[in-house]
Amino acid sequence: MTQTLFDVLRILDEAGIGHPVPGEVISERLGITRTAVWKYVNLLREIGYRIDAQPKTGYSLEKRSWLLLPYEVKRYLKTQVIGQEMHHFEQVPSTDALARQLLHEVGDEVAPGTVLVAEQQTGGIGRMNRVWMSPEGGIWATIVLMPKLNVDQTFTIMMAGSLALARAIRQEFGLSALIKWPNDVFIGDKKVAGMTIELTADDDILRYCLVGVGIDVNVSVEKTMPNISNLVTSISDELGHEVERAEFFARFLKEFERRYNMVLKGETEPLFREWRSLSCTLHRRVRIRTVRESFDGEAIDIDEHGALIVHRDGGEVERVIAGDCFML
Amino acid sequence: MTQTLFDVLRILDEAGIGHPVPGEVISERLGITRTAVWKYVNLLREIGYRIDAQPKTGYSLEKRSWLLLPYEVKRYLKTQVIGQEMHHFEQVPSTDALARQLLHEVGDEVAPGTVLVAEQQTGGIGRMNRVWMSPEGGIWATIVLMPKLNVDQTFTIMMAGSLALARAIRQEFGLSALIKWPNDVFIGDKKVAGMTIELTADDDILRYCLVGVGIDVNVSVEKTMPNISNLVTSISDELGHEVERAEFFARFLKEFERRYNMVLKGETEPLFREWRSLSCTLHRRVRIRTVRESFDGEAIDIDEHGALIVHRDGGEVERVIAGDCFML
Repeated sequence: MTQTLFDVLRILDEAGIGHPVPGEVISERLGITRTAVWKYVNLLREIGYRIDAQPKTGYSLEKRSWLLLPYEVKRYLKTQVIGQEMHHFEQVPSTDALARQLLHEVGDEVAPGTVLVAEQQTGGIGRMNRVWMSPEGGIWATIVLMPKLNVDQTFTIMMAGSLALARAIRQEFGLSALIKWPNDVFIGDKKVAGMTIELTADDDILRYCLVGVGIDVNVSVEKTMPNISNLVTSISDELGHEVERAEFFARFLKEFERRYNMVLKGETEPLFREWRSLSCTLHRRVRIRTVRESFDGEAIDIDEHGALIVHRDGGEVERVIAGDCFML
Repeated sequence: MTQTLFDVLRILDEAGIGHPVPGEVISERLGITRTAVWKYVNLLREIGYRIDAQPKTGYSLEKRSWLLLPYEVKRYLKTQVIGQEMHHFEQVPSTDALARQLLHEVGDEVAPGTVLVAEQQTGGIGRMNRVWMSPEGGIWATIVLMPKLNVDQTFTIMMAGSLALARAIRQEFGLSALIKWPNDVFIGDKKVAGMTIELTADDDILRYCLVGVGIDVNVSVEKTMPNISNLVTSISDELGHEVERAEFFARFLKEFERRYNMVLKGETEPLFREWRSLSCTLHRRVRIRTVRESFDGEAIDIDEHGALIVHRDGGEVERVIAGDCFML
């Protein structure tokens, strides 16, 4: 959404839903022709706003867009930094790839906390380079961070993300979201959201950190990914109806910022406590599959680097740094 | 194209093709963030501009868009009124329908001479409500006029249009375009451009006049309308290569404005003379088909209302007001 388009929308919005604003008023306030106002109104209609036009009384906003437009998210956004700069895309290969291109072209001048969000990804990638289905209705976003932290803090950033996801889902929709090690968000035994994290570091110090988030919000799993419908769910499938994405996303960003600030200040202990309380992995029998081997045991805890501590059946206590974890 | 997008393009353009402008410079001049600059550059790329990005030196415009964007047309436009306000659309049902919607919503505040232009029409309508194929590469446009003229001047406005089309094609591409009565432009025995005219009148005085223009410029007739390739041609088919549309369209608008001003001043005699000199219908044996009948004869002249005067084989001299005319 470009500046003038946003200005036209703001004028209609300030008048209130259903209250017409004469085209001349918009034209004068923005210093554009009446035909330009008409063109912008048509562009707003194209991105999902319902705007009525009465030759006598003017244009009235009747219904908001269903798109996850920064303008809509910002109506609810209460953060200081995260998402204050936000850019929306219709269909992109992946928001992570876009963020890499952004950093390549703009570098250090990218505002920390910039969020790129897309309606649809054609080449979404999940953890361990797996294909991540990203149909319309979900939230596919990347948060660009420049934390002055050591690379060994990566897990705590990820933890801030998955906690924020689980909390936002619980608060906004009343669903019992839990975290499956390392960073997936589950409702019951099905995944509803996931995260990736991508780093650039100078020596040990993080330079950029891209937090990729994928949330199946208004997604019919049966329709869009029938072959994995036993593993995946969505907010709308759980609730039986579609929900407002903008308010939820704003809440997630707020929840994330609060915890990310704790990470920056080194106050990570409360995050570990919260993680343990929202984990669906701990104190459960699990099957661990790493590149080397596969074994069963009981998940006991995580350590400060995010490794899962597993009491192997009839054996030792092991640290699992990377791998898949199946609940038995 | 919205204002800020246009501003970014203008800054790159002023630097010159291949000359980079640092992102910071654009950012400061427009009062937008560096990431917003990046987003606008990406939007410009999406609408066909090739823009290189070097982290050290900045963004450079390398190649202009192939779209018929107002910004590109205006680089060549030498009119006073026609096309000074111009709006571009990607794909629309028809620019005439858009213009009607514009007039309905904006009314008398539409600037006279406003031009709506589209890359593609999905429901283009030609003369006598016939389907008008409007593929990419052509020029599909509507000019909104508010002439204070009597409705009986409609034909002279149409004449101004078809003359401007034929002249612009001749001047720009050196092709022998002629006018087939009433208002089609032909090269040899194939149609290359057509016009429609749509009126609103209060009593006898024209209120609005929508001049619809369709020109097959960069269109492969064989590929896009193979079933009528014996009747239709295009500029690129005639020349064997694609051409620059923006400069040609600017020239057409200039040629049209000059003749339209003559119509407004009542100086129509020179237009009739020019029309006669560029007609491929006059002094030819023709077959006339009207709703009532069909007959052969020789086309002798047109009268001041645009009716074709035909000397019917072995009979009278007839005035044909509306109908199809086939050259024998």
